[in-house]
Amino acid sequence: VTLYELPTPFLTVDLDAVERNIVRTQAYCDRHGLALRPHVKTHKLPLIARMQVDAGARGLTCQKLGEAEVMVDHGFEDILITFPLVGTGKPNRLAELATRARLAIAADSAVVARGLSDAVAARGASIGFLVECDTGYGRTGVQSPEEAAELASVVDALPGLELAGVMTHPAIRGSGEWLSRARGAIERRGLRVERVSGGGTPQAYAAHESGVYTELRVGTYVYGDRRCVVLGLMPLEDCALRVVATVVSRPTAERAIVDAGSKTLTSDPLPGIPDGTGHGLVVEYPDAALERLSEEHGNLDLTACSARPEVGEVVTIVPNHACGVVNLHDEAALHRSRAEVTVVPIPARGLVR
Amino acid sequence: VTLYELPTPFLTVDLDAVERNIVRTQAYCDRHGLALRPHVKTHKLPLIARMQVDAGARGLTCQKLGEAEVMVDHGFEDILITFPLVGTGKPNRLAELATRARLAIAADSAVVARGLSDAVAARGASIGFLVECDTGYGRTGVQSPEEAAELASVVDALPGLELAGVMTHPAIRGSGEWLSRARGAIERRGLRVERVSGGGTPQAYAAHESGVYTELRVGTYVYGDRRCVVLGLMPLEDCALRVVATVVSRPTAERAIVDAGSKTLTSDPLPGIPDGTGHGLVVEYPDAALERLSEEHGNLDLTACSARPEVGEVVTIVPNHACGVVNLHDEAALHRSRAEVTVVPIPARGLVR
Repeated sequence: VTLYELPTPFLTVDLDAVERNIVRTQAYCDRHGLALRPHVKTHKLPLIARMQVDAGARGLTCQKLGEAEVMVDHGFEDILITFPLVGTGKPNRLAELATRARLAIAADSAVVARGLSDAVAARGASIGFLVECDTGYGRTGVQSPEEAAELASVVDALPGLELAGVMTHPAIRGSGEWLSRARGAIERRGLRVERVSGGGTPQAYAAHESGVYTELRVGTYVYGDRRCVVLGLMPLEDCALRVVATVVSRPTAERAIVDAGSKTLTSDPLPGIPDGTGHGLVVEYPDAALERLSEEHGNLDLTACSARPEVGEVVTIVPNHACGVVNLHDEAALHRSRAEVTVVPIPARGLVR
Repeated sequence: VTLYELPTPFLTVDLDAVERNIVRTQAYCDRHGLALRPHVKTHKLPLIARMQVDAGARGLTCQKLGEAEVMVDHGFEDILITFPLVGTGKPNRLAELATRARLAIAADSAVVARGLSDAVAARGASIGFLVECDTGYGRTGVQSPEEAAELASVVDALPGLELAGVMTHPAIRGSGEWLSRARGAIERRGLRVERVSGGGTPQAYAAHESGVYTELRVGTYVYGDRRCVVLGLMPLEDCALRVVATVVSRPTAERAIVDAGSKTLTSDPLPGIPDGTGHGLVVEYPDAALERLSEEHGNLDLTACSARPEVGEVVTIVPNHACGVVNLHDEAALHRSRAEVTVVPIPARGLVR
């Protein structure tokens, strides 16, 4: 079976493009002495994680404990979880996992740190702890370098936790300076900051500029998506992730409906892109606008197209946001240069806990 | 385990509210002589479908063939698929299913009808065919009553297909008149129009007004969501579907982060609601604004709140769009009045094909 013979909609991954993306980012990190720690949230596939580690990645980043459990089950030994683990079952699951792999966790409060310490220490295990810093994104993270130093002191005194450093997401302009001050404040308390971890594909290749980062966490770089193309981060041919879809209706001369809607492509917009509308790039009909999604329908506006697809035609779509799309699919069709596909399950899909 | 003791995020369903919603809509249909054909895309759960059929529903509606296969596997015998089935494997899967259940399909083109006819007739089976009409939504559907009549004539001549009538989605103001004209045009060709099928929860209770509909397809009514509440379609207490989430960070006095992001709640907006922003209602903190989602993080703006949640606190969220949210979850916790929960898998989740 080749790409265009798959039942649709189907998620497809071009392994040649994946390899190009891995090599490019690994080379950047090697050149600048940064440890690369790819985020598995983009692919949720142990076999891609293996390609990343084999190419030189230091370890993996997971956003959820469930993702980390899958990766440890698949033999990965060095994992950072960049989400505050709190609530029913979480500390005990983390502690159990800490007996099987080298783990680190990021969090921004003493209450989370204490909950994890109790559980991990009770197992006689130990995990690294990165103080999460809000360097401008306005999500999780301590609000000042002094707050980072205070939390570092708390963590340093807790059994089962080993203060490892600081982290932020995303690493944006000014984050490096912020983290330098946090590192200084922590070191003035006599504590060591071994890791300074920054993340986010869009500004990944600026990570070396501030001189403070020791580690780069990126996810989307491995697949790419419409956002990456629109931002000029990679050419379309390096977008490894595409959805094949079938035109199921041509109700008017200007409208085509494909069998890929929000259940296939997500409703994720294009953050950070002014006037970023639409839900994906249609590779075969670049002038078609994927203007509206229902759950199973995608509305293509063909007004700007000279050639137009017929009912039954298969098209390939580069989605807005790779990570969200992967999460919707139980399996992916891997291929090289559109030759025969191999269908594999996506074991870390849907693991919200 | 009760609701607040679940690991988070977790999808929860209040069966008492489900029953109230089923009874109310079934009573409306019974009062007006409409066949109720609930759309399973909202719940994707055979056990809820069973409650709907036991309460008097005529049959089920599915959006995807995979959903229909699950429902037939669970013993349901009368299913309408309201999506044009075309592409690799689809006609043959439909034909196979037609040997096991009473099926009907909606589509808007002769090319789709012919593809299905060939496959179904080859099995010696037969399925109903509804001509899909675009009565204003601008998605799939023939564009005029005369076009509907032409497609009806084509279908009438095809083996394996039995012309059953016309359908539209959503049934909006003016749709009834449109479909009356289509019925007239088809009947003038000497063909019978047995079913006139309208769908969509928002205007469901106006379905009897035009006098043309024989069948009502609704999905969201059974669970409700934030859109239903904002539109005044149901009170908050009848929203059966909620997500329990934990506050994992309180980086500032005005901000809380919950462990429910777009992977848990979707990025679905509030269509048809002017200035509809935000991603859900936080039941315990109604003045909190769920203003931004990342994949795993939900940003709550607490500025308007007098009481504010602490790290570790569990909250319940009514999402914007029930159907999309259900699709993201492998399992749901069923309960009555927040007593003990029963966790069940969601067998028709993620079936995009």
